[in-house]
Amino acid sequence: VSGAVPEPVALVGLGVLGGSLSRALRGLESPPTVSAYARSGRDVSAALEAGVIDRAATGVADAVRGAALVIVATPLGAEEAVLRAAAPELVPEALVLDVGSLQVPALAAATASGLSARFVACHPMAGSEASGFEAGDATLFRDRPVWLSGPGGEDEALLGEARTFWSALGARPAVIDADLHDTRMAVVSHLPQVLANGLARVLEEGGFTVDDLGPAGRDMTRLAASSPELWRDVFSHSGPQVAALLRLLGRELDGWARILDGQDLDEVGRRMARTRRWRNP
Amino acid sequence: VSGAVPEPVALVGLGVLGGSLSRALRGLESPPTVSAYARSGRDVSAALEAGVIDRAATGVADAVRGAALVIVATPLGAEEAVLRAAAPELVPEALVLDVGSLQVPALAAATASGLSARFVACHPMAGSEASGFEAGDATLFRDRPVWLSGPGGEDEALLGEARTFWSALGARPAVIDADLHDTRMAVVSHLPQVLANGLARVLEEGGFTVDDLGPAGRDMTRLAASSPELWRDVFSHSGPQVAALLRLLGRELDGWARILDGQDLDEVGRRMARTRRWRNP
Repeated sequence: VSGAVPEPVALVGLGVLGGSLSRALRGLESPPTVSAYARSGRDVSAALEAGVIDRAATGVADAVRGAALVIVATPLGAEEAVLRAAAPELVPEALVLDVGSLQVPALAAATASGLSARFVACHPMAGSEASGFEAGDATLFRDRPVWLSGPGGEDEALLGEARTFWSALGARPAVIDADLHDTRMAVVSHLPQVLANGLARVLEEGGFTVDDLGPAGRDMTRLAASSPELWRDVFSHSGPQVAALLRLLGRELDGWARILDGQDLDEVGRRMARTRRWRNP
Repeated sequence: VSGAVPEPVALVGLGVLGGSLSRALRGLESPPTVSAYARSGRDVSAALEAGVIDRAATGVADAVRGAALVIVATPLGAEEAVLRAAAPELVPEALVLDVGSLQVPALAAATASGLSARFVACHPMAGSEASGFEAGDATLFRDRPVWLSGPGGEDEALLGEARTFWSALGARPAVIDADLHDTRMAVVSHLPQVLANGLARVLEEGGFTVDDLGPAGRDMTRLAASSPELWRDVFSHSGPQVAALLRLLGRELDGWARILDGQDLDEVGRRMARTRRWRNP
């Protein structure tokens, strides 16, 4: 899609998501010029070597100066500092996006930085338990939903620009209310994350290693390798909500313990038949 | 490996595991002749059409008559009936294997059928949440551990034959004590299974569908589609053990709920850093 991506692009952060974005942008028919800044010099060097960024900026201000599109791909906790550093350097028509896991705090950071009129919170439902530029992938966003919300949500032109950008990368953007988004993510993303960590701890305490696991145990603990830094930021917002969900799940698992202990195998079969229909509709 | 697989082979069951076995056997340099029987006529037709079995038997007795190697690839609950039906037809030197999830009940079924002197319980750490012949895969066992145990465990010749068979398929056989095996499986396999079911129920009750999930939620619920029939049999043995493990995990998740509620983010970070080291050593 020619002209879908305003350029030059400034990319802040070159981890899995920033690294995937830089590769995806370079793969476009008319690749935009990309200046990038990342805290990790190693990720910057890797991106330069891979030929997917044009310039390594010396800092956020240097990266975003003159940019038509700014993408903040840092952990959530760093967003406000990045946006504040970027704000004085931005040209008036610049579009600013993030790739955060939560939208209420991202929009709050944009408002606090005076950027709410040009900021769209973007959450691609894509990622990896791995970290760093090398774990990135040009096709990470292809066919993946990307949730968009703007401050107030009513600026159709701004949301339209964000939509065009993600469509150009082959993703499936959709607008959502930020509050609703964050509540949904606590259930479909943060709860599974903690489950994987909790299961991993039980397995480790039982003396098991990853080599002891079959495909089931491997899948169910894959997320236990997720970035502590990234999730610390997420849980600083959604922690209490996730705690309530863990208690809900705890009651659910208690119910399974009761029927397994009581050998109510008919009920086991009924429940499994139902989850199977839900999982493979 | 020529001569590693005694023939003719009798295969009882043509689901994911039997279907994978039939394909893997057909892919050997010198493929053995295979007679197969399965309850599902659809799976038998599919296997004949795929050209991976030589003959559709009319029943267990017909399948195993004259076989040098019998492989029981049915759900655990059907094993004893299959072994009892097979016993009168077996030639004295026949080797009998299964691909069950639990070894104590499998060995008990072999003993009850008078087959303990020629039976090795085999558990390949491979499988799929899908069911039926079509979900099989010739490479399912490649490089996967296969746990072997015999009655008493001391018959080295018998275990050696089983070991040779699995090695011919590219798997990594290893002998284990049946009790120890079953206890380990309750932790590394049955517990993750119930977790996936429990999470799926919480998600369904919250009004979510599979389309609402990202990669994390998808991985963590993949097993929710597992066969109720197969797991019913497994839980009829390991249910109380799994119930105890669920209570242990419940306490672990309670701990996470407490630190997330209390916003003890340093402790969240420490726990995640530790599970990450455990998961990706």
